[in-house]
Amino acid sequence: MTLNVGVIGVGMIGQDHIRRLTTVLSGARVSAVTDVDIDRAKSVASGLPAAKAVETGQDLITDSEVDAVVVTSWGPTHEEYVLACIDAGKQVFCEKPLASTREACERIVDAEVAAGKRLVMVGFMRRYDAGYRAMKETIESGEIGAPLLFHSAHRNPSVPPHYVNDMIINDTCVHDVDVARWLLDDEIVAARVLVPRRNSLAGDHLTDPILFVFETAHGALVDVEASVNIQYGYDIRGEVVGERGTVALADSGRTVLRSGGRQSGRVPDDWRERFLSAYDTELQEWVNAVTDGGSTGPSSWDGYAATVVCDAGVKAMNSGGERVELSLRERPALYKAKAGSGPTVD
Amino acid sequence: MTLNVGVIGVGMIGQDHIRRLTTVLSGARVSAVTDVDIDRAKSVASGLPAAKAVETGQDLITDSEVDAVVVTSWGPTHEEYVLACIDAGKQVFCEKPLASTREACERIVDAEVAAGKRLVMVGFMRRYDAGYRAMKETIESGEIGAPLLFHSAHRNPSVPPHYVNDMIINDTCVHDVDVARWLLDDEIVAARVLVPRRNSLAGDHLTDPILFVFETAHGALVDVEASVNIQYGYDIRGEVVGERGTVALADSGRTVLRSGGRQSGRVPDDWRERFLSAYDTELQEWVNAVTDGGSTGPSSWDGYAATVVCDAGVKAMNSGGERVELSLRERPALYKAKAGSGPTVD
Amino acid sequence: MTLNVGVIGVGMIGQDHIRRLTTVLSGARVSAVTDVDIDRAKSVASGLPAAKAVETGQDLITDSEVDAVVVTSWGPTHEEYVLACIDAGKQVFCEKPLASTREACERIVDAEVAAGKRLVMVGFMRRYDAGYRAMKETIESGEIGAPLLFHSAHRNPSVPPHYVNDMIINDTCVHDVDVARWLLDDEIVAARVLVPRRNSLAGDHLTDPILFVFETAHGALVDVEASVNIQYGYDIRGEVVGERGTVALADSGRTVLRSGGRQSGRVPDDWRERFLSAYDTELQEWVNAVTDGGSTGPSSWDGYAATVVCDAGVKAMNSGGERVELSLRERPALYKAKAGSGPTVD
Amino acid sequence: MTLNVGVIGVGMIGQDHIRRLTTVLSGARVSAVTDVDIDRAKSVASGLPAAKAVETGQDLITDSEVDAVVVTSWGPTHEEYVLACIDAGKQVFCEKPLASTREACERIVDAEVAAGKRLVMVGFMRRYDAGYRAMKETIESGEIGAPLLFHSAHRNPSVPPHYVNDMIINDTCVHDVDVARWLLDDEIVAARVLVPRRNSLAGDHLTDPILFVFETAHGALVDVEASVNIQYGYDIRGEVVGERGTVALADSGRTVLRSGGRQSGRVPDDWRERFLSAYDTELQEWVNAVTDGGSTGPSSWDGYAATVVCDAGVKAMNSGGERVELSLRERPALYKAKAGSGPTVD
Repeated sequence: MTLNVGVIGVGMIGQDHIRRLTTVLSGARVSAVTDVDIDRAKSVASGLPAAKAVETGQDLITDSEVDAVVVTSWGPTHEEYVLACIDAGKQVFCEKPLASTREACERIVDAEVAAGKRLVMVGFMRRYDAGYRAMKETIESGEIGAPLLFHSAHRNPSVPPHYVNDMIINDTCVHDVDVARWLLDDEIVAARVLVPRRNSLAGDHLTDPILFVFETAHGALVDVEASVNIQYGYDIRGEVVGERGTVALADSGRTVLRSGGRQSGRVPDDWRERFLSAYDTELQEWVNAVTDGGSTGPSSWDGYAATVVCDAGVKAMNSGGERVELSLRERPALYKAKAGSGPTVD
Repeated sequence: MTLNVGVIGVGMIGQDHIRRLTTVLSGARVSAVTDVDIDRAKSVASGLPAAKAVETGQDLITDSEVDAVVVTSWGPTHEEYVLACIDAGKQVFCEKPLASTREACERIVDAEVAAGKRLVMVGFMRRYDAGYRAMKETIESGEIGAPLLFHSAHRNPSVPPHYVNDMIINDTCVHDVDVARWLLDDEIVAARVLVPRRNSLAGDHLTDPILFVFETAHGALVDVEASVNIQYGYDIRGEVVGERGTVALADSGRTVLRSGGRQSGRVPDDWRERFLSAYDTELQEWVNAVTDGGSTGPSSWDGYAATVVCDAGVKAMNSGGERVELSLRERPALYKAKAGSGPTVD
Repeated sequence: MTLNVGVIGVGMIGQDHIRRLTTVLSGARVSAVTDVDIDRAKSVASGLPAAKAVETGQDLITDSEVDAVVVTSWGPTHEEYVLACIDAGKQVFCEKPLASTREACERIVDAEVAAGKRLVMVGFMRRYDAGYRAMKETIESGEIGAPLLFHSAHRNPSVPPHYVNDMIINDTCVHDVDVARWLLDDEIVAARVLVPRRNSLAGDHLTDPILFVFETAHGALVDVEASVNIQYGYDIRGEVVGERGTVALADSGRTVLRSGGRQSGRVPDDWRERFLSAYDTELQEWVNAVTDGGSTGPSSWDGYAATVVCDAGVKAMNSGGERVELSLRERPALYKAKAGSGPTVD
Repeated sequence: MTLNVGVIGVGMIGQDHIRRLTTVLSGARVSAVTDVDIDRAKSVASGLPAAKAVETGQDLITDSEVDAVVVTSWGPTHEEYVLACIDAGKQVFCEKPLASTREACERIVDAEVAAGKRLVMVGFMRRYDAGYRAMKETIESGEIGAPLLFHSAHRNPSVPPHYVNDMIINDTCVHDVDVARWLLDDEIVAARVLVPRRNSLAGDHLTDPILFVFETAHGALVDVEASVNIQYGYDIRGEVVGERGTVALADSGRTVLRSGGRQSGRVPDDWRERFLSAYDTELQEWVNAVTDGGSTGPSSWDGYAATVVCDAGVKAMNSGGERVELSLRERPALYKAKAGSGPTVD
């Protein structure tokens, strides 16, 4: 009854998912780990109740003690491992990005379609956040009418030294891209990036903040403020504007403090704090679906679409405000649900 | 068309009302002032466009250039001046308290009843605050059902050295008493004061904070937290609990600041900031009613009732948690509206 | 001491200012009125304590019983009356727009510069709203660092039948343009309008909603959502994003209602409710400044700049997302304060 | 590595804990169940992956396949099962109440002290709610100064027909009693119940609402509004007032809806929705502690203290507002942490 999970890549996020599978979630255990640094893999395995270290991702994927795979290795290696999982017929949870290029994503989609069943879930955790889920419920209830605009703000207190300029699209805004597709149930067809002057607290190599604006196939407009050196906290804001009302994320503070002339609530320190529960829910739903013989969550198609939009976003950011059109290939029947459809067991 | 107002007592609150009548409100001017310190009265008069200083309150009240009177002198002198106004048939706005004792209040009520018309308005400004007015509207709409409880909190950052112990009832909670009578449209019949340990930031001579609990004739229960050395700001909170819902004062901050890990709003510094608009509205409505030949606002009856309740409150505070019953004389027909009825022109 | 005010144009907004001058504000009275419909002017005058109806705006402006003028006539007539006031050396409060065209605004600026003193105040009332004022204080305090972005939303429940398409820029967004200039203390140099699909509840002739984006001279980016058929209420939202924090307008509800599974606050019905106090403060500050022999508030320059930006906005709205640059003439020394400077007495 | 848990009592709450142990939490499975209705136990067992039904609670407790026990049977049976667990040296999680009478609680405390180690955790789940935990952190940080008052409100939309009058103290307010002891880190020494008129939507046999007021050993005052037929939702509110600030539970809604003239957030339907995460955290922490060979959470002492306070509360409710003093026996060294101390592993 317990799902044996192999984990490829035991860096920070890999170890966090291992912790989650081992001490938080129900119904799973980590049976094997690997890493480009095999010593690190061995060290991690030795701290787990029932896991072995194996030499390579390919070995792990084909290991008989591995029922399903979590891929948390370096982005450029995702394609190889996801394709191998599809080849082995094993369900795989792949952290975003699905793959580094549009073409790589298409190869995964092709392979999955050829396999005839969904085997891939991509780690877009916002779909599992209680706030975004409540927003989606409200939109789907019809209460605010058809959605016309989505204002999103993605604010990081700061970014690490290795954060290069394209990451504001590919690593930061990619979450807004996915959640916009999911909330609006729509595909994105054009992108534009508008840029104010640089935050003086950001590195000279960064375009920060930006206003990333995109249009959907059905004519909704999405504006995403990304501010990645805003100091005050990790703050994710969003409001969908419909024809007769709006729905927005509420502040996430649990308490109201009255002190020193202010009434105030906490802003999270970082994404771990803000999305802790979403990560738990995400992986639990994957474990549950896989254990039941199904699949769930953001699909290869969603990973592909996000990559194509981000490619257009990077191009737009480097084009001085130009509108960049983009198009997706035809959606295979395998991803039959409506565009951007949410977590469901097929 | 301009109402000539005489002001008795030009201390802090008196000067504030003079400023209000002169530079904020419509339709009034200060034509005469007096004060126990006649030199202060002269000095104030000299700074006004059309006011003279007169020697005594009695002179001011009977002055032909005074249409209506504002009494902002020391509390123990209120009775004398209010009675003189009634005697002169002039409308009078009297800052709270109406008078220092129950008996003095009764003499005023008797005189006004004998005069056969309402001439007195007492300065309970909360009835003019937009928040309390919206609460009352909600209660009267029936949306929350019949009111059963009223939780009130009256918090001062600190109190001045001359603040003696009974003032927490007579000067601080008196506002909660009046606004409870008005919101609930009910009379108070019993009082109790429960006392936690003293705030170490309060003077040794003070009982601070207290929980002042009282019961109304129709069975509602009111609990008032009074904390008069709470440092963080001047915070007035209130929630009326009905049979199927509640209505509460919202936070009064105009903006939300996101900074340093918090999202926050301002708490007022003091009562001037919090009730600035209420004071303006209060006095403008009085000027309007008087100009129209009518009367309005909290009546002598309301001033009498508040004094009787506060007397019981002080007794209760000194009795170690005992329940103290109180009773009012029969309500004269002059105050025919329902108990605690709000601002209306007769 | 009482300022005699003549009012040109006694339509809805004109009558509202007359009511304000007569029954709300201190220190002013309406001494003369006129209107294109002279019978209406006579009717209004007859209901006032001390006002006469005069035949024409020019007559009113030169009338010896008129100290200062309020212009609330039809927009295209503003230029003529404002120029006449300047010519007569009388202070004039002109409702927005200052004039219908850039050239007309320039003629006013020229005339005022030639007169050598500020005589004109334009009715951009948001600068007098307690929320925006608190935002500006926070920005100027440096607490959020330099402002980089301003997100604004301007939502009307619906618009009347005569509301034509350009009005979403010229009548609706013009307020956001002015308040952005004022909050950011900066001039606007380029505009762009992005358009989602039409709200199905809007008339076919309207572009509704829009996202009006503009850039300032110092590189800040402003995005204004204008939704003028959003049904749910009149909702003005705004957040300025700085380098290390943000400041936003708080919800304006006075109470929190808990009922039927929701805790909720009121959204205003319309601009009258939302900006009631701002209108009062605006005109009182004008009366005070004029009485003191000075001038205050949004200047001819501000009216001119708003008109130029709106011209660019209309052009941008009709150009399919293109960026439209704009430039202002050199700022005369008369408008010496920083760009978009707030209410001050010269 | 997996903890085998036996569950005594498979009614609603029992089945909910079984679901939690089976499909939500990490590190546990249900190995045995029993119930006064053995057929129901068999039915439940048959739906679980690895559980058997056993005839009696005593059999279950001594079963070698049961490592630890969850007691969710009828309250009057708790004492017997908890004592049997202590006798068997097995850790037991007992839903509140620990036992029905003060004497029964004392027998449990005696037995546990004789056993020389903590074996019992009582199900006061509020200590595991993120909101209350954040409140406690703030209090312990010293930010608001020493706590002087705690205002609590416990509102149920309605209660079932079997809800008798004492349950408003014993089943409803008992949670406020425990969380007050924990937040304030203090014991309760006196209780009083003040009663407004009955909510007309409550059954005639109920005293609803009540204001349950109690005092702590260190002089803090706690007022608990319990309203159990308030219709609008399940709403838990709380504010601790300190010497220089306060901390309150925030509203729990995840989104803000703007619609129909209101901005609003959701109020939970019932305690399941409000405390879902708290129940999960509570039982996971117990599983973790037990697996590590320790104990955690609210102790027998806490269960005993809550029962004694509720006994006084019921007495007070029936005494017309009288103050009822209460006292606890001396605290055994086994419960050595400060009074009301929170979840810790010994």
